[in-house]
Amino acid sequence: MDIIVLKPSATEDDIRHIVKKLESKGLKANISKGTERTIIGVIGDTSRVSEDEENAIKAIEAVESVTRIIKPYKLASREFKKDDTVINVRGIPIGGKKVQVVAGPCAVENRTIVLNIAEKVKAAGASFFRGGAFKPRTSPYSFQGLGVEGLKILAEARELTGLPIVTELMDPRDIDVVAEYADVIQIGARNMQNFRLLLEVGQTDKPVLLKRGLSATIKEWLMAAEYIMSKGNQNVILCERGIRTFETATRNTLDLSAVPLLKELTHLPVVVDPSHGVGKWNLVIPMSRAAVAAGADGLLIEVHTNPEEALSDGEQSIKPDVFKQLMEEIRPIAEALGRTV
Amino acid sequence: MDIIVLKPSATEDDIRHIVKKLESKGLKANISKGTERTIIGVIGDTSRVSEDEENAIKAIEAVESVTRIIKPYKLASREFKKDDTVINVRGIPIGGKKVQVVAGPCAVENRTIVLNIAEKVKAAGASFFRGGAFKPRTSPYSFQGLGVEGLKILAEARELTGLPIVTELMDPRDIDVVAEYADVIQIGARNMQNFRLLLEVGQTDKPVLLKRGLSATIKEWLMAAEYIMSKGNQNVILCERGIRTFETATRNTLDLSAVPLLKELTHLPVVVDPSHGVGKWNLVIPMSRAAVAAGADGLLIEVHTNPEEALSDGEQSIKPDVFKQLMEEIRPIAEALGRTV
Amino acid sequence: MDIIVLKPSATEDDIRHIVKKLESKGLKANISKGTERTIIGVIGDTSRVSEDEENAIKAIEAVESVTRIIKPYKLASREFKKDDTVINVRGIPIGGKKVQVVAGPCAVENRTIVLNIAEKVKAAGASFFRGGAFKPRTSPYSFQGLGVEGLKILAEARELTGLPIVTELMDPRDIDVVAEYADVIQIGARNMQNFRLLLEVGQTDKPVLLKRGLSATIKEWLMAAEYIMSKGNQNVILCERGIRTFETATRNTLDLSAVPLLKELTHLPVVVDPSHGVGKWNLVIPMSRAAVAAGADGLLIEVHTNPEEALSDGEQSIKPDVFKQLMEEIRPIAEALGRTV
Amino acid sequence: MDIIVLKPSATEDDIRHIVKKLESKGLKANISKGTERTIIGVIGDTSRVSEDEENAIKAIEAVESVTRIIKPYKLASREFKKDDTVINVRGIPIGGKKVQVVAGPCAVENRTIVLNIAEKVKAAGASFFRGGAFKPRTSPYSFQGLGVEGLKILAEARELTGLPIVTELMDPRDIDVVAEYADVIQIGARNMQNFRLLLEVGQTDKPVLLKRGLSATIKEWLMAAEYIMSKGNQNVILCERGIRTFETATRNTLDLSAVPLLKELTHLPVVVDPSHGVGKWNLVIPMSRAAVAAGADGLLIEVHTNPEEALSDGEQSIKPDVFKQLMEEIRPIAEALGRTV
Repeated sequence: MDIIVLKPSATEDDIRHIVKKLESKGLKANISKGTERTIIGVIGDTSRVSEDEENAIKAIEAVESVTRIIKPYKLASREFKKDDTVINVRGIPIGGKKVQVVAGPCAVENRTIVLNIAEKVKAAGASFFRGGAFKPRTSPYSFQGLGVEGLKILAEARELTGLPIVTELMDPRDIDVVAEYADVIQIGARNMQNFRLLLEVGQTDKPVLLKRGLSATIKEWLMAAEYIMSKGNQNVILCERGIRTFETATRNTLDLSAVPLLKELTHLPVVVDPSHGVGKWNLVIPMSRAAVAAGADGLLIEVHTNPEEALSDGEQSIKPDVFKQLMEEIRPIAEALGRTV
Repeated sequence: MDIIVLKPSATEDDIRHIVKKLESKGLKANISKGTERTIIGVIGDTSRVSEDEENAIKAIEAVESVTRIIKPYKLASREFKKDDTVINVRGIPIGGKKVQVVAGPCAVENRTIVLNIAEKVKAAGASFFRGGAFKPRTSPYSFQGLGVEGLKILAEARELTGLPIVTELMDPRDIDVVAEYADVIQIGARNMQNFRLLLEVGQTDKPVLLKRGLSATIKEWLMAAEYIMSKGNQNVILCERGIRTFETATRNTLDLSAVPLLKELTHLPVVVDPSHGVGKWNLVIPMSRAAVAAGADGLLIEVHTNPEEALSDGEQSIKPDVFKQLMEEIRPIAEALGRTV
Repeated sequence: MDIIVLKPSATEDDIRHIVKKLESKGLKANISKGTERTIIGVIGDTSRVSEDEENAIKAIEAVESVTRIIKPYKLASREFKKDDTVINVRGIPIGGKKVQVVAGPCAVENRTIVLNIAEKVKAAGASFFRGGAFKPRTSPYSFQGLGVEGLKILAEARELTGLPIVTELMDPRDIDVVAEYADVIQIGARNMQNFRLLLEVGQTDKPVLLKRGLSATIKEWLMAAEYIMSKGNQNVILCERGIRTFETATRNTLDLSAVPLLKELTHLPVVVDPSHGVGKWNLVIPMSRAAVAAGADGLLIEVHTNPEEALSDGEQSIKPDVFKQLMEEIRPIAEALGRTV
Repeated sequence: MDIIVLKPSATEDDIRHIVKKLESKGLKANISKGTERTIIGVIGDTSRVSEDEENAIKAIEAVESVTRIIKPYKLASREFKKDDTVINVRGIPIGGKKVQVVAGPCAVENRTIVLNIAEKVKAAGASFFRGGAFKPRTSPYSFQGLGVEGLKILAEARELTGLPIVTELMDPRDIDVVAEYADVIQIGARNMQNFRLLLEVGQTDKPVLLKRGLSATIKEWLMAAEYIMSKGNQNVILCERGIRTFETATRNTLDLSAVPLLKELTHLPVVVDPSHGVGKWNLVIPMSRAAVAAGADGLLIEVHTNPEEALSDGEQSIKPDVFKQLMEEIRPIAEALGRTV
């Protein structure tokens, strides 16, 4: 609520009315009368002025626009914390020098298949294992996940391979059981602004992988992180997974420029999910290379031993041998940036 | 999964492989070899083939594309039910000849203000009262609603005015208390694909007002309605509230063409929320007229006695006298369409 | 270039550097040091500061953002000219009380068909006749229009019916011949930022119908109008025809909120093309009603006697009897707004 | 026009009508009656069926949808030409093993500055020099370029450095003079569907750098290339420069997934312009690395010796020393892909 521009028709009374309103909130007004507009600069701790109060100022008829100068997020901002946040998951750091690769099937379908995929991605060099036990699906008639049964299979995969588990939470009522089995709790794109869910994971001490919403701006995404952090959990990992645009040749448009931009705005680690970002398995390797080159701290890759029998997202899953090639192709890119894989 | 187009490089073996796969699902294949591509038409009850199985077919390397002919929603479709669904709320029909107007403040802030607004909108001709007790807010530092206290104030407003109550549910854990007080349960735009919430309201018998997600396609929106209906609750009201586009001069882009399009695709009532759709109070009247002219069954209007003190969405709220004018301006439009207000 | 926000790291030297730069352009700086940021308000005639100079200020490392307060267009703005511009075309006013309807085929294909359509739309109450002699087509293999031959057929249609002609100019080299035959020169959506074409029509005295670009903001659209007006031609009609969004159920998303918003920002007449806006003939009538209800000064409607033989845009063309019904349905809407059709 | 899906209400008469229509165009119909819909597969050389005829089929009331199987572009397609097109410009190949870097100021402003920049980018390793003599600007009040004077300065820069020149053509009337000075003719994003301009450059033998339109799909972009190629000029270079989305934190959203996707669909070289793609100079290096990692054949980089005095696009221009660093950072990425810089 830092800069208020008045309409040309604004009167002295209007100005007095606004100044009084600001003073009632403990703020001061710096009035600057230009040749075409009067501008009121708001001085004081405007970070305590809420979005609501800002909107209420906009409701005044004499006001043309209100421009906020201070960022609406604080804990997530680079200004608040200069150094990169490195999140430690069972001894594996996310946000440090090593680019961490999270791999696994979209959904946990069946114990044998899942354990097999886990072993394969471990052998190829993955650092984390992923898989959905609770699945958000567009259709009520699609496979919705195995639930707790799926979480148990994931735990078994962890035992087998030693890879920490990343899995999705969809419902605040499942927080305890998911937190029991998961090493990193994923919040999916469709739940990025499910604020109750955010508050819930904010009260655990588990690292949270927060996917960007399909039409979320960078600012809204950081505000979602702020929700979690405001409850005490500072271990948030941001995951770019493509945004919705007019282009239909790819499933989404992977916004890789978000990576270096976030590195400026926030201290949180940033990873990229090219599988959902493009939705086509044969584009996953080049976009993984590009994500690492853009500065991503990690990748989320959908891997399946038999994509054409996968119960979810078969078209964007790669086979273990393609995943192995992916690991080989990103290594020199990471090294060019002074990192490891 | 109805039409499978193969790549030019597809071999006879590829074709046999796909045909076998289809037959294993109880379907038949109609193979049509063109000069440039082979196309496989899938015959049988493809509506039972899930999105997942479709994606799995896409994962086959010889497949270029899969085009679904059958709509993925059934209960929500006009083909399934020819006649318009009319939903009766305390004796007031939504989806019938009368255009119903739902009015009230964005958030329930304070008993006196809310009751005052309720009386004013009742006097101006509103048929329903709206107000949020649980508020989804972009910032964790914004006003989050009064919760159950707010629901009680809404009930009091209903007692005072006789207007049924529309209010939002954000968390599946609040379903019982919200259902106790609300006459219509609203699912907000950010929760349109909060599938657990959809399943929950699908198990009540309360009418559900389902807002379109910020970047939801018409198809995804109808699939969200299908989630609710698949659990037994057929009383779904669709609410267009603007989509996210590149244009920033308005808060969202109100997609009024969704109204006549939905009238073709579905039997469910369709209402429009121009307040959120444009985000500027002075555009609310013309867009209300346009919504009624496009064929909307109702409107959702944010009204506040003192927008510049509103705790939420002040800039898009209109005052009671402007609301009165709105009611007067939409009346002749409704009548031109053979409807009443 | 009116408000310059500095980074927290900005030094006194940075501030002096910027102030000096402003003073060299004849402007003064109002420095306001807040607790978290320093803000420089620019005082003086900033309307003379170009977009380029604004961008150059952004290039200074100490600068976080530059917010422009003054609108970048002047001649097109409502502030510059309070009263509505009414454009007189052969005695028919556009922008006045009467809602003007421009109807005709997408492309001029064949003399007999075109003359027949012209008579039919005239009989149903159209005020203008439209048709493309030069056609911008996505594919080089599509019908590209009859060229000058098409212009002659349009002139014949005008003679036959008395309806003034609206037709598109695609190439600055065709300006003389198009101006010879047309009463209103149309600039298509794909040419909205073909700046050479804009300058060319700015030098004629013919009214210009300027379609909104597929991804043009309201501001860019008004800047395109400013291009024409800056050359002396004040007779610009703005035509909303749908913008490109993620939704594919309609050809474009018709942004009707642009109509009342433009009425605030500019004095120029605003018309709506629902045929291109939705791309489906059966949605044209409801969206025409909505456009008139939103306050449009006119409509552009594609009409064809035999859409399934049309050489262009058959799917969105309506037949003459449907057009007749459209005219009947918009009449009471216009009257509800105190207008005529 | 390959697959026609009929509405459930379609009759035998409707089917006969459509079959007859197809036969009149020399095509055959393969009718497949499913339980819920009848589908007509169109057999024969449907590549000769135009977009117009497809739309006309959609205009038939009994038709629900028409799905085109054959790609609407031919000369540009990978199917038509398997091998990568390598374009030779004064002995420098674009589309081969070496990643070519095109660098220079946005606009040609002044002889001394331009020659100085040319020497600097040459020294840092650029292969081409770029600069606009004719500038498409959003505002009529912005600097519009030096015109022919600018072309002469570019020619002088070429003489000085030996670097071939890339410069933009905006107006078909300037084709001769631009072709006289330029080595590669650039078609800007706003002119991607300026079809007359495309036909004009299609008749020269100069390589054409075709920028993607702000809201152009990959398909439309390839159709624009097809326009040029259909006139005989096969030397088209595609340039991804960011698309328009809802995100405002960057100037555009750079769609790097377009790079590997185009490599599948077309044989033409693909380069990336990260300067326009992100619009912020400090994101140019990471996005250049990402573009090379995604497989781009080249980069377009805006370089200026004094961005804060640049007459155009200062905020996204990098200084020569940053450009030098850019060259050093992309080298190991290119080498990781088996390429050189």
